[in-house]
Amino acid sequence: MDNKFQKIRNDFPILNQKVNGEPLVYLDSAATSQKPQAVIDGLIHYYQNDNANVHRSVYTLGQRATEEYENARQKVQRFINAKEDKEVIFTKGATDSLNLVASTYGEEHIKAGDEIVISIMEHHSNLIPWQQLAIRKQAKLKYIGLTKNGELDMKDAAQQITDKTKIVAIAHASNVLGVTNDIKELARIAHSHNAVIVADGAQAVPHQKVDVQDLDVDFYAFSGHKMLSPMGIGVLYGKKALLEAMRPYQYGGEMIDFVEKQKSTWTDLPWKFEAGTQNVAGAIGLGEAIDYLNEIGIDQVKAHEEELVEYLLPKLLQDQDLEVYGPHDPKKHNGVISFNIKGLHPHDVATALDMEGISVRAGHHCAQPLMKELGVVATVRASFYLYNTKADADKLLRAIAETKEFFKV
Amino acid sequence: MDNKFQKIRNDFPILNQKVNGEPLVYLDSAATSQKPQAVIDGLIHYYQNDNANVHRSVYTLGQRATEEYENARQKVQRFINAKEDKEVIFTKGATDSLNLVASTYGEEHIKAGDEIVISIMEHHSNLIPWQQLAIRKQAKLKYIGLTKNGELDMKDAAQQITDKTKIVAIAHASNVLGVTNDIKELARIAHSHNAVIVADGAQAVPHQKVDVQDLDVDFYAFSGHKMLSPMGIGVLYGKKALLEAMRPYQYGGEMIDFVEKQKSTWTDLPWKFEAGTQNVAGAIGLGEAIDYLNEIGIDQVKAHEEELVEYLLPKLLQDQDLEVYGPHDPKKHNGVISFNIKGLHPHDVATALDMEGISVRAGHHCAQPLMKELGVVATVRASFYLYNTKADADKLLRAIAETKEFFKV
Repeated sequence: MDNKFQKIRNDFPILNQKVNGEPLVYLDSAATSQKPQAVIDGLIHYYQNDNANVHRSVYTLGQRATEEYENARQKVQRFINAKEDKEVIFTKGATDSLNLVASTYGEEHIKAGDEIVISIMEHHSNLIPWQQLAIRKQAKLKYIGLTKNGELDMKDAAQQITDKTKIVAIAHASNVLGVTNDIKELARIAHSHNAVIVADGAQAVPHQKVDVQDLDVDFYAFSGHKMLSPMGIGVLYGKKALLEAMRPYQYGGEMIDFVEKQKSTWTDLPWKFEAGTQNVAGAIGLGEAIDYLNEIGIDQVKAHEEELVEYLLPKLLQDQDLEVYGPHDPKKHNGVISFNIKGLHPHDVATALDMEGISVRAGHHCAQPLMKELGVVATVRASFYLYNTKADADKLLRAIAETKEFFKV
Repeated sequence: MDNKFQKIRNDFPILNQKVNGEPLVYLDSAATSQKPQAVIDGLIHYYQNDNANVHRSVYTLGQRATEEYENARQKVQRFINAKEDKEVIFTKGATDSLNLVASTYGEEHIKAGDEIVISIMEHHSNLIPWQQLAIRKQAKLKYIGLTKNGELDMKDAAQQITDKTKIVAIAHASNVLGVTNDIKELARIAHSHNAVIVADGAQAVPHQKVDVQDLDVDFYAFSGHKMLSPMGIGVLYGKKALLEAMRPYQYGGEMIDFVEKQKSTWTDLPWKFEAGTQNVAGAIGLGEAIDYLNEIGIDQVKAHEEELVEYLLPKLLQDQDLEVYGPHDPKKHNGVISFNIKGLHPHDVATALDMEGISVRAGHHCAQPLMKELGVVATVRASFYLYNTKADADKLLRAIAETKEFFKV
């Protein structure tokens, strides 16, 4: 393993602690990532030096804050290769971004009888907004299924998406199955039927190179907190022509041109979608996180996670007492691995692993329809990121063995 | 002046800097407040020790984060004297909170012909959501006017609010005029017509004791960043019965009970309104800010600001070259003072003051209808908070004199 990644761990102060007497092994980055000191320092620097409300501020602090805020937007633009920085809207997180699209573009374009196509592996945040929109509009919500391997069934996709389809909304990477979906091909299919495609990139942007122009997505949502940045900040990318034609999502300060007593007009992108005081510190922190990821190289982050999965996944698959979900081929797998120990409740497993200092998630992972499809109520999920090492994988394997022994599986 | 307040300044590291060669005098707290080191330390501690996604986490970090997050909610509950902590919804800020109410309660209850009553002094965040709702529903948006003193005209309020009124939405304190409105009496009037009252408390909660039960408000919105806390966090208080009957605002993780392919059910308050990963660090920071304010005493903060205004306002009013907006009686004035130097554009004034190290805001303060009512396009606004001193007021007076001299007013 690259020596660089052994050292990266030291950049994350939170990892240098014991939990239940054991060194912390954090394997829940798919829920939220830890933050390097550089990002924490960015927050401290902002609040100790430059904190002010952005835009319309004439004074020095306000100008500095505005410059850093808009600079962060440009960092996001370059990171996902958006054509223009005005296509980058700061939101509260991926959930906020997806609700924004459903409540504006969706509300305006979906009519009775229209079809919205999502997949059975969607996180609730990319499922319920569309489901409720479909209910409100008497539209039809259709699901693309899985192959036997636990991948998105692209043949089914080609059948589900029809000329009646107005919106296709799909996770770029699953938060349960560890698969990355072929968004580029899905975009091609969607566009061939004059539908727009919305990608939920919450599990992709932190872990692999994302190029929104190459993917040709119409909308793309992700969260900062899953990619080393502070909480409370996220992004909605949208193609300029679409965003320009959309009505605002929220109303308030900074998103207007003129406000009269009975009518108002809206300002330009991206601010039209950023009503009220935004999380300036969060945006700047996201910029710092992007700098940090760029310094390591997002392709190297991806390669590192693949190396960990190639090491760990076959060992988990060998264990007859485990049920592992998603593709069994490590090459089709990112750093998210869901499994169960047969006969044990995932919550008991997570509690037992926590006794060994290992943080994993247990539950339905905000994907109840997928759980039903998999025939389970819940799974254990271990998710890896750049600060994890083979030693972490070894500790997980050891702790699973001990858990089985303890519960006499 | 209480020696305590002289020392408070030292708790705010950002204030210990020079701007354009002069010591910073920050007079824009109505836009955003500065943060004491205790709040910054709270963020650092959280990200270095306890950062995790809240709820549903079995492991130690997740439990710690959840406990701190819910503990912060209880601090908010006690600070505004809500009956139950489930009446406290964490949002992105006051704008988010007000849009939430307009998009859920408003959307569900306003019909064609109904009336919504706001005031002419509203910030755009408590104006446009209601204006656009009225347009969507073909309802009528009515405005309560001002007295000659620049206060809310309560006689007009009693006339505007009728049996046709379904929602009354009023700022608790103005971000321009420096007045505090009698929300308790407005609530009484609204309730006597079976209307609900929504108060925008963004300029009140940071500066005076707010008791939502005593005010008898149905909804109450405010932002963390204006009250010493990190950006990206705010609160919506709502009476339990109302919140329980409302549909969710956003859909996603953590706000559901059961999700099936074509339908979903929602979880209990307050989480029904907190879809997706929340700004946990922001909420904890808000809790730290409340601790800090409580230690000083919010009544003492209020008294301190009043003392500054009693010192400064008469001096500004004596100056024949100034136009001062809002009540001229210091006792009816909080720490927000809007003025213009006759013949000078407010942006030029703000720029000149910045050259002296003084940060004030110039513009329409997101209150264009109020500007029109006052017969101006923009004003200069100086806003004071607990870290300001009489020395700051003196510097402002001196800099105004120098600005007049420079521009030969």
